[in-house]
Amino acid sequence: MERRLQPNKHKMVILAEGSFGILESKTATVLVRYLPDNVVAVIDSTKAGKDVSEVIEVGRGIPVVSSLAEAMELHPTMLAIGIAPPGGELPEAWRSILQEAIEHGLHVMSGLHRFLSDDPQLADLAKRHNVILWDVRKPPANLPVATCKAADVDSTVVLTVGSDCRVGKMVASIEIADRARNRGLDAEFCATGQNGMMISGWGIAIDAVVSDFTAGASERIVLDGAKNHDLLIVEGQGSLVHPGYSGVTLGLLHGSMPDAMIFCHQPSRKIVARYTVPLPSLTEMIRQYEMLAKPIKPAKVIGLALNCFDLTEDEAREAIEAAERETGLPATDVIRFGADKLVDVIERMDNDKHGRPE
Amino acid sequence: MERRLQPNKHKMVILAEGSFGILESKTATVLVRYLPDNVVAVIDSTKAGKDVSEVIEVGRGIPVVSSLAEAMELHPTMLAIGIAPPGGELPEAWRSILQEAIEHGLHVMSGLHRFLSDDPQLADLAKRHNVILWDVRKPPANLPVATCKAADVDSTVVLTVGSDCRVGKMVASIEIADRARNRGLDAEFCATGQNGMMISGWGIAIDAVVSDFTAGASERIVLDGAKNHDLLIVEGQGSLVHPGYSGVTLGLLHGSMPDAMIFCHQPSRKIVARYTVPLPSLTEMIRQYEMLAKPIKPAKVIGLALNCFDLTEDEAREAIEAAERETGLPATDVIRFGADKLVDVIERMDNDKHGRPE
Repeated sequence: MERRLQPNKHKMVILAEGSFGILESKTATVLVRYLPDNVVAVIDSTKAGKDVSEVIEVGRGIPVVSSLAEAMELHPTMLAIGIAPPGGELPEAWRSILQEAIEHGLHVMSGLHRFLSDDPQLADLAKRHNVILWDVRKPPANLPVATCKAADVDSTVVLTVGSDCRVGKMVASIEIADRARNRGLDAEFCATGQNGMMISGWGIAIDAVVSDFTAGASERIVLDGAKNHDLLIVEGQGSLVHPGYSGVTLGLLHGSMPDAMIFCHQPSRKIVARYTVPLPSLTEMIRQYEMLAKPIKPAKVIGLALNCFDLTEDEAREAIEAAERETGLPATDVIRFGADKLVDVIERMDNDKHGRPE
Repeated sequence: MERRLQPNKHKMVILAEGSFGILESKTATVLVRYLPDNVVAVIDSTKAGKDVSEVIEVGRGIPVVSSLAEAMELHPTMLAIGIAPPGGELPEAWRSILQEAIEHGLHVMSGLHRFLSDDPQLADLAKRHNVILWDVRKPPANLPVATCKAADVDSTVVLTVGSDCRVGKMVASIEIADRARNRGLDAEFCATGQNGMMISGWGIAIDAVVSDFTAGASERIVLDGAKNHDLLIVEGQGSLVHPGYSGVTLGLLHGSMPDAMIFCHQPSRKIVARYTVPLPSLTEMIRQYEMLAKPIKPAKVIGLALNCFDLTEDEAREAIEAAERETGLPATDVIRFGADKLVDVIERMDNDKHGRPE
């Protein structure tokens, strides 16, 4: 039986040696943003002595330290690997840090492609010190081929979809779920990727699953979430027009069988990142998702989450209005202007599904 | 370095113990149909003494035998596992047969989900007897995320797509490639699944690849095929409306970047097999494929391969005419009426692509 960690029950030190930064250490940034009370320190000797907020804008009061020994004075209970090295392998320089952490009794959470629990030396050490090595990307055993059971859950399922990778699907999902909870709805963020899982403590990294079982893994996430929650906000992956990852996107759409979708986009993005593929219009991309959902379970895009981090406030408002005009759907930047507009429309749809008056 | 087999250079015995039949042993049936000169015997003690053609309609002159010992009199050089046991595991009863085969110096070709080469006992025995264990489904190491390089090949790429699994995409691909070769075109069948690979001796079982790399694996197949051939007929997988496998289908479409598609369908099929999903109209399914191809590389469906095995000849002709009327595209049943209609339209498209007069 796989043993997972509940990061929000721990005090964690984040390893980001040599690479701590907003873009360089996406995992570290996400953990600091969403679990600020659980992070006691970030290790990066090249930035030691700074406050975390000086480096990544969030995390005021959390120190950057030079070593694990220094971090240990703050009594962490786990270590999170906060950066993704090229190739997903474990850099040899980190091995001694991980060994030291395990010997200090720290659990370890890793999103590396190479699983720590498959490393005989680390696995043995972890066993002797009775700590958990949680390889977030490791797929559960015995995933099924999708069976369409996700259509039967009583919970309302909302999937974030989008125009490309890294346009803010995870952030939109978390912000919508948080806002919905604050408004009294029993909402749950359902992670489908490693960073989201490190925040919520559950989910499946569906891009690490053998492709026959991508939809089945997505289905399992919805079935698991529906056991305990009324409203599931499922984190989307990739895009239907992404040359590398579109298959993951469609497997997730058909496996999770959402009642509705929120379309995520970065207005300044005109081509698929790292490719030369021009993005179709919002209208056309939305039509693609709805057309593909239809034969399995019809679902409409009911709102837009626009990531305007690289626009001025005026430009952001203009981009949002333009998108609303083009699509006829409510749009917002969930970080800048909050997620209420989207929660409004999700709540209406949820009431409709369950036949409740408003 | 992985070692593969070239089945068309071998004399093979097919293991189908207890399950030899048209539907029960799909792999065995496919091997007999497409490599009849390479099959010396089929092992199934429950049907021993019969001619293979009495059981599966093809393979006249090939005996069904009761044991490997009996098959050895026909001097095979390899053994192919011809059935897929539930769960993809190796039945314990077969282990002794495989051991015996290896000890006799036979190479082994297997499409089981559980890899023979990962079985310490069999791997060790194979090494000592210097035979190859080819696990057809085992993905190559270091597959890339797709890069859109398949768009740059000079070869013409045709992908078979379809309405569902098991509607005849592999058969259509093989028949089209064979017919094109007979007409003087330098055509190659590009396998993307285990049964096709066992016939051609190359390819990648893309449904066994981690989903991040499905499109990348598809791209590699096209790049490999284009090194040596002008016209690639790429075997399709699944369907865009298949709840379990649609992600594999889309990854293959975007990774292989075809110039054109052949749509495969079984006219009597009205719902996705094993599910309750009604199939959309031919027109709508074709529009889905073309719509999704468009942003990455536009490609049209240029013909239909209809699998009419369960219809009378009159019904088959009617189904073909109805499909042609609905879609305006040429249609045929490649087994019953040959693949010429489809090769005609592929050849025209190929001439157009290369600016050749007809």
